[in-house]
Amino acid sequence: MLPLLVRQSTLFPKTQKTAPSDAESINHKLLVRAGFMDQLMAGSWTLMPLGLRVVGKINQIIREEMNEVGGQELAMPLLHPKSIWNESGRWDTAKEVMYQFKDIHEKEFALSFTHEEIVMDLLRKQITSYRDLPVYVYQFSTKFRNELRAKSGILRGREFMMKDLYSAHTSEEDLMAYYEKVKAAYVKVFTRLGFNFKVTLASGGVFTDKNTHEFQVLSEAGEDTIYFKDGSMEAVNDEVFEGNKDEYISAKSIEVGNIFPLGTWYAEKMGVFFTDQDGVKKPVWFGSYGIGPTRVMGVLVEVNHDDKGIVWPEVVAPFAVHLISLGQNNLNKAEEVAKKLTDLGHEVLWDDRDIAAGAKFADSDLIGIPHRIIISDKTGDSLEYKNRKSGETSLVSFEELLKVI
Amino acid sequence: MLPLLVRQSTLFPKTQKTAPSDAESINHKLLVRAGFMDQLMAGSWTLMPLGLRVVGKINQIIREEMNEVGGQELAMPLLHPKSIWNESGRWDTAKEVMYQFKDIHEKEFALSFTHEEIVMDLLRKQITSYRDLPVYVYQFSTKFRNELRAKSGILRGREFMMKDLYSAHTSEEDLMAYYEKVKAAYVKVFTRLGFNFKVTLASGGVFTDKNTHEFQVLSEAGEDTIYFKDGSMEAVNDEVFEGNKDEYISAKSIEVGNIFPLGTWYAEKMGVFFTDQDGVKKPVWFGSYGIGPTRVMGVLVEVNHDDKGIVWPEVVAPFAVHLISLGQNNLNKAEEVAKKLTDLGHEVLWDDRDIAAGAKFADSDLIGIPHRIIISDKTGDSLEYKNRKSGETSLVSFEELLKVI
Repeated sequence: MLPLLVRQSTLFPKTQKTAPSDAESINHKLLVRAGFMDQLMAGSWTLMPLGLRVVGKINQIIREEMNEVGGQELAMPLLHPKSIWNESGRWDTAKEVMYQFKDIHEKEFALSFTHEEIVMDLLRKQITSYRDLPVYVYQFSTKFRNELRAKSGILRGREFMMKDLYSAHTSEEDLMAYYEKVKAAYVKVFTRLGFNFKVTLASGGVFTDKNTHEFQVLSEAGEDTIYFKDGSMEAVNDEVFEGNKDEYISAKSIEVGNIFPLGTWYAEKMGVFFTDQDGVKKPVWFGSYGIGPTRVMGVLVEVNHDDKGIVWPEVVAPFAVHLISLGQNNLNKAEEVAKKLTDLGHEVLWDDRDIAAGAKFADSDLIGIPHRIIISDKTGDSLEYKNRKSGETSLVSFEELLKVI
Repeated sequence: MLPLLVRQSTLFPKTQKTAPSDAESINHKLLVRAGFMDQLMAGSWTLMPLGLRVVGKINQIIREEMNEVGGQELAMPLLHPKSIWNESGRWDTAKEVMYQFKDIHEKEFALSFTHEEIVMDLLRKQITSYRDLPVYVYQFSTKFRNELRAKSGILRGREFMMKDLYSAHTSEEDLMAYYEKVKAAYVKVFTRLGFNFKVTLASGGVFTDKNTHEFQVLSEAGEDTIYFKDGSMEAVNDEVFEGNKDEYISAKSIEVGNIFPLGTWYAEKMGVFFTDQDGVKKPVWFGSYGIGPTRVMGVLVEVNHDDKGIVWPEVVAPFAVHLISLGQNNLNKAEEVAKKLTDLGHEVLWDDRDIAAGAKFADSDLIGIPHRIIISDKTGDSLEYKNRKSGETSLVSFEELLKVI
């Protein structure tokens, strides 16, 4: 992560005046122009220092809520042997989306498109008795999916970050009680991120034949259609919707998370059994729960921007304060303010560049840090404050600034 | 990461009494038995919660020193298009070690075995003028190498974590000045980790035809041979050694880091140019600098263990205190002590399990947390303290404990 204070003269990369010619979506245009990400190839992104910092903050919010429901963080491999994917049969059923290949020694591998089978392999080595359950483990990890349509900026990647939580239980009741706990934790995560979202009943895709839940953020950039009643946090995905459409609001939305009550299917396929209190061998009840942090960053931009650039919510902004000094004679004064802010733990991007004020302000609007402070010949002992979201400006003292940020 | 306080009854996984039958190296045996890692296939490891916490601490030490030399953290993709690797010619020259494959649409990809070409592609999109240099970027990222011999536990993986820093400069002088800065930063990192190590002159392998430096930790488990004089921190790798061997100490050692002054070779191959002050177009001077944090964890175990288990150095231990309560009647008292410790910011693993004292002590020795505290019917108002490394025990008050940890 970047340190508390970053001088913009050293920040890699610079902003760009124009968006890439192939950029169609808002998140693609703004995140690339503002220097948060760079495209290596279709669906494949470098998180630049600013972008990694935002994703790090998203991850930390998720991590806190996962720890709150007992999750223990680990990290599983990304390169998987064919043999394990054959056990569940998904080597064949998920062929379209999974990257599969032979190495030069003719050994067959898949890249992680998800980790259920890998967790199951881990559990069968570690679990023998009901005393070893439940288990709650999660990771922040790279997923690879061979998407035909890898457009929409960072919303749909061939390679992307996912937080995936897995839980294993002795009974369906225990699984479903935990499923509801995770659902509530997800509501907390997306509420903390400031999203207008719906908890949406959906089908299970290549994961399960059971009903599952998706977390859908309402957005004009959405490609999904969901149905809900006014004022309700619950919705139904159009794949499983069976009601009278006239009675519901239909919405375009973007999926940012999903939870799967997978049952015993995986355990039975892969031989993950435990011995219960009566000495009876039973399959483990299993659930999996995903959030895409890199996609979340993209959705945040889709729903938090204006015609000048990104407007980051405070909880995930790469910096709290964008300090802009105008004129090289004000560098010392600006450095003093920067130091006072960082000593108090505030993250500051200081635009110390020797360029025109207009260019600095345009970059600042584009990057979207919530609080802007200008130090110039005009500001004297005060600081000129501007709120990125409201656009309101005022002259404040350092103490007044601290109250705002 | 795990929270400050973890109850051992919930920790995944349990310890194992015996090492895996195929385990040859000490780090493999101890890290698996103690529950820090699990093998998915040869050379491929899951970092379990304890292991991820140790690697997280190693990463944080590295991150601090990389930030200190101006490094900005980012994250690059792991799946790379063949076209970029063709530009440098390494698609062919590194074929043996690089995983290469075609997807179902006949597109060719490589998995990240390193990132020089990817950084170069990033730089040529962002750099135009000398004003845009230098650039220092680093990441903690997964590397894949098709190793024939993937034994030695986590020392030699087919998939492993690497911190890789890249620097780009306007001149050889600037590159070499920064190279020395990074060398000094690496000395700090490995000193903080408590290693007995040598800065070792070496060849550049598939990276460069220039001389490079390796950081080699002296260890009986080492597979490299280096030559140095008594008391000197500098050594020479046997690949490039040309002196009289009788005048040097030869040592078995394990490489934990390397630094490469790559020059302009990559920039010329890939067309990464900048315009200097006189308007002349010149190739960028380039360096790369690696440390393997997962390998570092393995080496730490190789050089810090006894016949009972791991002996973690305090700076990377998964917890500062292993709190062991004996008897279910002492749970309340133990919880009180645990709370007081975590309120002060100390990380505590609390063995709250209802099992025999001997089993708890054996697990504690195996896991290797530096400070052990026992609360039992015998300890009264005091705490029984035991130092994992020295084996010394004493009865202490809570205040005396705080002075030790």
